[in-house]
Amino acid sequence: MIERNGIVELLKKVNNLSLSSGHFVPFICQGVQVGIVTEQVCKVLLRYPHVFNVTPAYVTFSPILEGFHQCSQALNEVLLELRSNLEFSSLKGWRDECYEISSSYGSKPFFQIERSGAPIFGIRKYGIQINGYVNHSQQGLCLWFQRRSLTKPTYPGQIDNFVGGGLTEGRGVLETAIKEGEEEAGLEPHLCKNILPTGTISYLHQSDRGIHPLTEFIFDLELPESWLPANKDGEVDEWILCPVNKIFDVLFSKDLKLTSSPVIVDFLVRHGILNIENEPDLPIIAELLHTPLHLLNSVPS
Amino acid sequence: MIERNGIVELLKKVNNLSLSSGHFVPFICQGVQVGIVTEQVCKVLLRYPHVFNVTPAYVTFSPILEGFHQCSQALNEVLLELRSNLEFSSLKGWRDECYEISSSYGSKPFFQIERSGAPIFGIRKYGIQINGYVNHSQQGLCLWFQRRSLTKPTYPGQIDNFVGGGLTEGRGVLETAIKEGEEEAGLEPHLCKNILPTGTISYLHQSDRGIHPLTEFIFDLELPESWLPANKDGEVDEWILCPVNKIFDVLFSKDLKLTSSPVIVDFLVRHGILNIENEPDLPIIAELLHTPLHLLNSVPS
Repeated sequence: MIERNGIVELLKKVNNLSLSSGHFVPFICQGVQVGIVTEQVCKVLLRYPHVFNVTPAYVTFSPILEGFHQCSQALNEVLLELRSNLEFSSLKGWRDECYEISSSYGSKPFFQIERSGAPIFGIRKYGIQINGYVNHSQQGLCLWFQRRSLTKPTYPGQIDNFVGGGLTEGRGVLETAIKEGEEEAGLEPHLCKNILPTGTISYLHQSDRGIHPLTEFIFDLELPESWLPANKDGEVDEWILCPVNKIFDVLFSKDLKLTSSPVIVDFLVRHGILNIENEPDLPIIAELLHTPLHLLNSVPS
Repeated sequence: MIERNGIVELLKKVNNLSLSSGHFVPFICQGVQVGIVTEQVCKVLLRYPHVFNVTPAYVTFSPILEGFHQCSQALNEVLLELRSNLEFSSLKGWRDECYEISSSYGSKPFFQIERSGAPIFGIRKYGIQINGYVNHSQQGLCLWFQRRSLTKPTYPGQIDNFVGGGLTEGRGVLETAIKEGEEEAGLEPHLCKNILPTGTISYLHQSDRGIHPLTEFIFDLELPESWLPANKDGEVDEWILCPVNKIFDVLFSKDLKLTSSPVIVDFLVRHGILNIENEPDLPIIAELLHTPLHLLNSVPS
């Protein structure tokens, strides 16, 4: 049923940037690596010496900038100019919504950055994903998937996990999961009582929009067979209930949003559907689901 | 309840050897890294130029040795001499039991090595661990632990996971788990039917016996409240049923075998007991449970 190396190759397409690759330099703030910048981006940042100190080994804010507000404001002005120049595709999706950047999840922020600018600086991001599943009386274990609306700015029309979303300032992780579940799938509060946090997955992905070091907080949620999702925010076009015996059709479908695949694989591993008896690459798969992004926080020597 | 950084520090004691540290060289066989050798071990191997090619950048078998049998035999002769010289503490526990070494789990072996010699060469090892747990009517979720017999050669008298063991040649992973469960805890076949594979954990540990890159195949097994473990092989002195609300007493106990701790933490994460709402370091914890040992298989540039 499973093609040898198929899952490893898929997860390597997600983790398509090696931490040891020499084609980028660290973005360092207060002695901590907060991002990854390509040589191409460095060339652009050299135009802004009053904002960035760009060296062959690293990028930092200019020492003339002090504190959260000065750094955030100067960075925002650069991003606004780059947006009007149309130099970076990611800025086309300007959100007017900021990520606060700190040394680790939840600690005091060094600066904030417009969400669409984060991939230019390879800023570490956090999100939530809910695996909605049903122990179906006829079909056995099934997983819910959504097809993203054709009007979404990213990955329109692609198959995606049941519920997912980015963490933004001022909202807790479980709180975000419940809010996204309500908006995307119409999850009622009494169903959310069964939501189970099951850990995190992490990957380092490079796309045409930039570099994405992403950590997803994963939740499992068992749903009644009789329940049907009902989208409320117009971002979902279709709901698909897939029995696990057809899960590899979804996993290897060209319609699947690439970065949704590790969420599915993690579910299959934790529930014993993928195991060493049917998948000899299980050890490398488990490692590729947990790329050590914490190493990005070490200052390189 | 949880001390900030306590779990990260514990997992860093387990992962106490950085893959990027410069104090060791790769042991390479047929173009694949199969182990890690310290500078101190390199000095000893230099005495055997007919067996090893030792350079400042790597160690290989001498090119005069060809194939599985020649390499295995020459290596065994070296280990026997080192054992009689009492140069390596790990060889005191000589087992007359071999690991077969290949590029990945289950593929064609390059050579075999006496089990007690593996840490000298930092050879990658595989094992199984079973989390035996009870949904107790009075105490809630509980985990079984064993206290290792005082006569065991390694970690005598220490607290250890419910059931665990190393994988050796000719036995499957699930088969090993069931065999160990039967020998260590008296698990009856009808109880093993509920055993659930839940993935792997991996770490890179250095002890006085050498270097241990270890991957553990993890199983969860729910047990009836009325069932009691019964050791059959004399390797267990005591059984402890610990409610999860007292689990951190076990996790941070000086009596716990250090390398048992990631198995406990992985269980707590997957079952939602450790989560981002009560443990801000969850992302780094999940990464430290899955050290990317597959990177050891890349030939260094």
